[in-house]
Amino acid sequence: MSLIHHNHLSTSISSSSSTFLARNNFNIRTQNVSLPAKNNGICKCVAAPLSEKAAYKTKVSRNENMAKLQAGYLFPEVARRKAAHMLKYPDAQVISLGIGDTTEPIPEVITSAMAKRSYALSTIEGYSGYGAEQGEKQLRAAIASTFYSNLGIEEADIFVSDGAKCDISRLQVLFGSSVTMAVQDPSYPAYVDSSVIMGQTGQFQKDVEKYGKIEYMKCNPENGFFPDLSTVPRTDVIFFCSPNNPTGSAASREQLTRLVQFAKENGSIIVYDSAYAIYMSDDNPRSIFEIPGAKEVAIETSSFSKYAGFTGVRLGWTVVPKELLFSDGFPVAKDFNRIVCTCFNGASNIAQAGGLACLSPEGFKAMHEVVAFYRENTSIIMETFNSLGFNVYGGTNAPYVWIHFPGQSSWDVFSEILEKTHVVTTPGSGFGPGGEGFIRVSAFGHRANVLEACRRFKELYK
Amino acid sequence: MSLIHHNHLSTSISSSSSTFLARNNFNIRTQNVSLPAKNNGICKCVAAPLSEKAAYKTKVSRNENMAKLQAGYLFPEVARRKAAHMLKYPDAQVISLGIGDTTEPIPEVITSAMAKRSYALSTIEGYSGYGAEQGEKQLRAAIASTFYSNLGIEEADIFVSDGAKCDISRLQVLFGSSVTMAVQDPSYPAYVDSSVIMGQTGQFQKDVEKYGKIEYMKCNPENGFFPDLSTVPRTDVIFFCSPNNPTGSAASREQLTRLVQFAKENGSIIVYDSAYAIYMSDDNPRSIFEIPGAKEVAIETSSFSKYAGFTGVRLGWTVVPKELLFSDGFPVAKDFNRIVCTCFNGASNIAQAGGLACLSPEGFKAMHEVVAFYRENTSIIMETFNSLGFNVYGGTNAPYVWIHFPGQSSWDVFSEILEKTHVVTTPGSGFGPGGEGFIRVSAFGHRANVLEACRRFKELYK
Repeated sequence: MSLIHHNHLSTSISSSSSTFLARNNFNIRTQNVSLPAKNNGICKCVAAPLSEKAAYKTKVSRNENMAKLQAGYLFPEVARRKAAHMLKYPDAQVISLGIGDTTEPIPEVITSAMAKRSYALSTIEGYSGYGAEQGEKQLRAAIASTFYSNLGIEEADIFVSDGAKCDISRLQVLFGSSVTMAVQDPSYPAYVDSSVIMGQTGQFQKDVEKYGKIEYMKCNPENGFFPDLSTVPRTDVIFFCSPNNPTGSAASREQLTRLVQFAKENGSIIVYDSAYAIYMSDDNPRSIFEIPGAKEVAIETSSFSKYAGFTGVRLGWTVVPKELLFSDGFPVAKDFNRIVCTCFNGASNIAQAGGLACLSPEGFKAMHEVVAFYRENTSIIMETFNSLGFNVYGGTNAPYVWIHFPGQSSWDVFSEILEKTHVVTTPGSGFGPGGEGFIRVSAFGHRANVLEACRRFKELYK
Repeated sequence: MSLIHHNHLSTSISSSSSTFLARNNFNIRTQNVSLPAKNNGICKCVAAPLSEKAAYKTKVSRNENMAKLQAGYLFPEVARRKAAHMLKYPDAQVISLGIGDTTEPIPEVITSAMAKRSYALSTIEGYSGYGAEQGEKQLRAAIASTFYSNLGIEEADIFVSDGAKCDISRLQVLFGSSVTMAVQDPSYPAYVDSSVIMGQTGQFQKDVEKYGKIEYMKCNPENGFFPDLSTVPRTDVIFFCSPNNPTGSAASREQLTRLVQFAKENGSIIVYDSAYAIYMSDDNPRSIFEIPGAKEVAIETSSFSKYAGFTGVRLGWTVVPKELLFSDGFPVAKDFNRIVCTCFNGASNIAQAGGLACLSPEGFKAMHEVVAFYRENTSIIMETFNSLGFNVYGGTNAPYVWIHFPGQSSWDVFSEILEKTHVVTTPGSGFGPGGEGFIRVSAFGHRANVLEACRRFKELYK
């Protein structure tokens, strides 16, 4: 009821009807109910006769695309359930292997570069104001030469950002509401949700748990987690993530060659998410641009988040090759540059100093050592579930282990694991209907926690 | 011709037609032509018969809203002309009072907090991954208590961001393509450009230099830079910036009370940009929420950029009061929270540590000292143009001086000043047709540069 209460406050200091004042103590106890995390009751409130009188409404219609969105964004929902569990079991040692959140300290060679840049901002020589919206020249060049050498990707094709998730939404703004899209099913929810927000989709269809007008490309054990493209209709945009979040599977060179060919034949644009490429142990492509001709049909987005523990520092990049053209021949990069200049103002200069340090010889080595540590975590989790007789997928090329619970509801499994082991995982169905019956276990965690979680898994499923 | 050239490259390593290979040396000299900054020729390239054959095009239509945008975003265009001027006069001491870019070092009490947070990320105790998308609780609380105490704005109403410009575009995504909007004319170009990108507007009408479906609220010396609301039709959204960029004028309490009343009567939502409130010297409201009832009709966006020289560090915030409701009673804050969770991932944790330091007693004091320094710059610039007999506006409550050149073209004045004094200003017409005949001079600059620029102005206009 906080809404009504606060309306009292605001109107009591306003020139409007003082009838509110009389009710000012009415629900004073709710003063500390806070929006938006705890506001699920608000709409009911507003619908109640009392509040109908109390609450002023603007005449601005709610964006109908926002209204299409189902529930909350997955990870805040997982966090909400974790928080509720901790309230229920205040003494439990809750271990989070849910949201893929890095836990290991950032190597000092990287943080000291950020500290140095911070201090420098207090000096005349070291101070810098607005940077280039596309990122600092040196960092763009380092990203191009480190990850795309010999692939024909140049400094000018790199757009530095505050993270891949943010760039995905900027790319949706670039494409606009008229494009059609395809996603892997399951997939990282930001692709679908940002598409819904931009108005590219129809309503959510409860029976199939899909949004209208989106092509869900099924990725499951039967097809080796690579979609059967012969059954996929043409769409303007194809979101494709490899190594995949959540399934942890990585597409082979041969599969990606087929994907690029598919896009070429259809005149589609692939948005390729390579945020986990550094976790690859097989000899699969690290970048879509390793595939001949990809520069004419693909954008690649990536991030320092899982490379260097920058989830909180915020730094990523997107590659839009100059060869990529809209149907009228207009370069996609030119429009993306306009979006970046108008809707964004560059990544933090301190974060960019950190990114540059990540790509120095010492930083690069240190970064890979942390990745190797998480890889060991992955092996421990895989071995645990293998030893318990589960069908275990992913892991080899990604920090995610994808475990099959045939015939069960992902949220039920999530809840049972949380209730009985105090370990937070992520329900597969949160990534799309194709994820139903699976849970994702993240390898991001302190070693002791991963070992303890695995001990508890063995207890639960022995 | 770089596009064609690079198409050769990409296709030459592809499995497709080798006829490209024959032309592989054709325009090798253009290898270093880079997109997007220098890509103005690209489209012509693509239109040429040769490249028609050479360039693969996707079948994805360009977003028609992007095609509506005129020229480049203002400030990159100013930067482009500055760069061209420096090429023409390599030995000139060019002084930039154009884009409002801070120049003074950030007080050490603030940068040391950022350095400390950076170093801490290398420790188990000090490391943090994903933060709350809405910002760190402590910072949200500090912003609420520092800038909105006694205004009924609480921690939960504050959304910390990577800057006001970015939040403006996220707000446009929130509103969607169906809303109508009004802006002050002249105004900060991000309001109009982001509205065009979201598809809220019609085509650009060259004769009046306005986009269709946007209400341009004229702000000029005749109306004291406050629009005559009796002539303004109802719109869903009203962008209002005070102290204003570019005119430097600040709305009085009485004027803002009229604005809020106007919004209430029309059921409109005001997006109030208070990014320059700290520069206020008159007794005008620092926040729209000082106006009774504003919480039911207004959102406020602000930034640390001009408060603490964070233009490169990137930190801002937006206030969405829980009392603000769409016509169906749904809380706007709840949808904005969904946007923030889906399209954004929080501001850099290091920048947030800096923001918290800005709001500490020492930081707050140091921050105001820098602001006071820029205020002195403003006075120097105002006195200069006053002494030269110009009609000078703004300055008193903002770091911008708005100078009238009746009957002249802003871009002509901009060019003449640049050509004859090597000083970069900003042409008023870049902020909308209402800015024609004015130029904006920014007070952000080292004292010596401001004095030298003023000396040159006196030379030019003596």
